[in-house]
Amino acid sequence: MINQRMYDLGAAPSAIRELFAYGMERKAMIGADKVFDFSIGNPSVPAPEAVRETILKLMDMDPVVLHGYTPASGAPQVRQTIADFIKREYGVPATPGQLYLTAGAAAGIAISLAAICNAGDQVIVPSPFFPEYRIWTEQIGCQLVEVPCLQPSFALDVPAIEAAINEHTSAIIINSPNNPVGSVYTRENLQELAAMLTRKEAELGRAIYIIADEPYRLLTYGADVPYIPCIYPRTIVCYSFSKCLSLPGERIGYIYVSDLMDNARETAIAVAGAGRALGYFCAPALFQYVLQACLELPADVEAYRINRELLTSGLRELGYEFVEPQGAFYLWVKALEPDAKAFSERAKKFELLLVPSDSFGCTGWVRVSYCVSRECIEGSMPAFAALKASYDAE
Amino acid sequence: MINQRMYDLGAAPSAIRELFAYGMERKAMIGADKVFDFSIGNPSVPAPEAVRETILKLMDMDPVVLHGYTPASGAPQVRQTIADFIKREYGVPATPGQLYLTAGAAAGIAISLAAICNAGDQVIVPSPFFPEYRIWTEQIGCQLVEVPCLQPSFALDVPAIEAAINEHTSAIIINSPNNPVGSVYTRENLQELAAMLTRKEAELGRAIYIIADEPYRLLTYGADVPYIPCIYPRTIVCYSFSKCLSLPGERIGYIYVSDLMDNARETAIAVAGAGRALGYFCAPALFQYVLQACLELPADVEAYRINRELLTSGLRELGYEFVEPQGAFYLWVKALEPDAKAFSERAKKFELLLVPSDSFGCTGWVRVSYCVSRECIEGSMPAFAALKASYDAE
Repeated sequence: MINQRMYDLGAAPSAIRELFAYGMERKAMIGADKVFDFSIGNPSVPAPEAVRETILKLMDMDPVVLHGYTPASGAPQVRQTIADFIKREYGVPATPGQLYLTAGAAAGIAISLAAICNAGDQVIVPSPFFPEYRIWTEQIGCQLVEVPCLQPSFALDVPAIEAAINEHTSAIIINSPNNPVGSVYTRENLQELAAMLTRKEAELGRAIYIIADEPYRLLTYGADVPYIPCIYPRTIVCYSFSKCLSLPGERIGYIYVSDLMDNARETAIAVAGAGRALGYFCAPALFQYVLQACLELPADVEAYRINRELLTSGLRELGYEFVEPQGAFYLWVKALEPDAKAFSERAKKFELLLVPSDSFGCTGWVRVSYCVSRECIEGSMPAFAALKASYDAE
Repeated sequence: MINQRMYDLGAAPSAIRELFAYGMERKAMIGADKVFDFSIGNPSVPAPEAVRETILKLMDMDPVVLHGYTPASGAPQVRQTIADFIKREYGVPATPGQLYLTAGAAAGIAISLAAICNAGDQVIVPSPFFPEYRIWTEQIGCQLVEVPCLQPSFALDVPAIEAAINEHTSAIIINSPNNPVGSVYTRENLQELAAMLTRKEAELGRAIYIIADEPYRLLTYGADVPYIPCIYPRTIVCYSFSKCLSLPGERIGYIYVSDLMDNARETAIAVAGAGRALGYFCAPALFQYVLQACLELPADVEAYRINRELLTSGLRELGYEFVEPQGAFYLWVKALEPDAKAFSERAKKFELLLVPSDSFGCTGWVRVSYCVSRECIEGSMPAFAALKASYDAE
């Protein structure tokens, strides 16, 4: 009598979570330093000291206010601070009424999709993509339409996206820097997308939103990450502090419905309604106030930069093929056989935990999360060598 | 092109929130001490000092662990602690696998409904009821069926509930101590409900769940609050620490799928799937660990007990009729005219903010939230007197 779909979703945790759970068991069995766990995107860099200092300071605040309900969209002063920041940082006319604080980008995307889609609509995602997109889209009775990125660049294939758009299309989810590929879409690529979407909106007489999933915005290694609302007005930014401030468990982020779209107010109201419908009351209060103080902190990318360098130079030397990572903390590596799951299984024999690309909607690759200790990267190299040798020997 | 239902939900905030917002404006205009704001259920008692001490202690924990992702269902040691507590406190065989930590009871109920209902199902609520129940039920394509409580006791009308049950019924939401009435269902009343549900389950060959919404469990004034899993096995408890630990903004609570039901494991798995589908990754991590330390703290009901005494004796003296409150921090007062909205509007003229019962699914009453300062209660008495006099003069 229970809901079979929910049972299935609960019974089959994502491949990432499954591999992560396997890693935990395996570490308990043979020792944590013997398992090279590249499965999960849990930041290995600690939250900045300023977060700790802010929390300590907040402990002097009246607890009734500190831990009390905020308005559903978030504390007004926190939204004002974020709006001012967006305005200053990206030069767009951001107002606090267009902001809705959320329990991370996951909640942000689920809420945004519910706000702008109607049952039967289609949502386009460039593939490979974060697997939960499908679940949130299908949850509201909509269909996920995958459009493979160009290879080997993994840029957006704008003509293919155009071909996928029809009178049911309500949104496209753009995730740059990208999980799982580590790619960053160029300004030209995004401008081409925006021009096409504008044309299709006029042609079809219907709003087509970009949902910009941006938890990795600050985690880059020199690449320019264009702010999508500057390029395409009908953009909803789903931001999260999980990765850049290393607060993934605290579930804090925001939805910013661009002021520049013609139906900005209506969309922001629908976002508030969708949050309500999905059981969200307000984003965790303490961390709303943490944000207010820590909003402008830069991300500490140094450790990831070192890991990236070690990993790419090591794997290059061993003869692995991969996409040169420009952002986030993921390396997208070509599997050494067509079946990525079989490759991932064989990697486990060498204590390497690599997520097969099938869970991201494509075949033949694995995702290597390098938000790990430097020792893990260094220690894994003989295992990567042995894995490669096992294929070379065939 | 946006979702009209979401727009409507966002455009029409709940009557409670609306009145609360009016109160904020009014206080800014004429002074906070001149407005008697009984609109919202935001605890006026500060969180226990132990919460602050625990947070300070947690600041010494490795921030990568402290703020990192926990499993979706919550940190294992926190779930173990809660399971042990439930076992010890209520004498039921609770196991950590049946627990799923949530962002408050709101998330808990929305997730539970999604887990156990299929589109087209019916969910019964005794009325009056917390208005968001309807939104969460309709969000998953189900129908809310209201069954009025008996008057003047506001006990469950079990024969009427039985008459409302049919082959589409999947759950009944029980909220005791009750918001908005402040009533507590007796053991006999709940046993009568359980016996009837058991009979109807057999008769219809279908599972009928009790969803026990329990944020006010510890806020009582002497009443016994039976633990529903002890009375009816197919119970899902949605607990929240918002009220008893005064942490409403932090969004922390749990779902406990009773180990005693025959489909306990399947239901818990469906709960995990539903959390995933609604965009929940994990409950806020820091407050999961706060719970672990503060789980057994008693609620500080003393201030509410004093308020309750002041309010009930004052209103009784003025000739108001109300339900003798046994739990929570709400007083359910008979409006002085049949139209509760008109009564609430007139009360505003005396700077009294009382929520009309229409938003809770019945006519002719107002909800007075007495989680306010003692001064507010005392200061409001002349206003209540003047309000009464304005009707007596007619």
